[in-house]
Amino acid sequence: MTQKAVFYHAGCTICLDAERQIAHALDPSRYAVEIVHLGADRSRIPEAEAAGVVSVPALVIGGAPLHINFGASLSDVKGVA
Amino acid sequence: MTQKAVFYHAGCTICLDAERQIAHALDPSRYAVEIVHLGADRSRIPEAEAAGVVSVPALVIGGAPLHINFGASLSDVKGVA
Repeated sequence: MTQKAVFYHAGCTICLDAERQIAHALDPSRYAVEIVHLGADRSRIPEAEAAGVVSVPALVIGGAPLHINFGASLSDVKGVA
Repeated sequence: MTQKAVFYHAGCTICLDAERQIAHALDPSRYAVEIVHLGADRSRIPEAEAAGVVSVPALVIGGAPLHINFGASLSDVKGVA
């Protein structure tokens, strides 16, 4: 039985490093990790906001947002055309 | 073959939440996670600093520090008698 974890990023170097180090390090027998690029899939931004994400990269796991280092604020991601 | 990952914290609520959500979520077949309470084991502070840790909670994995949310700066931890 796996629970869902969502890793939100915006394609920046800090995001990709965190993705490599954390998102792919979770136990696959317990967590199904979805990687969401908010720059490429802007329709997911409201969902990230609703989960409490204020900057990327962030991992939402167990319903709580974990902000990992700092790549960009969500408002910056929203401001990018 | 597991690689070492070290989770540094200082006992605060933010630290303990992150420990529960991240440190224990890593794949145990790939990562041997050590939990270090820098408030209780102050002799490990220089090692954390050398790894690039500037605040807790932080996870050092693959040689790089990931700062997860923000509980306290390392200088605050050092300042606590």
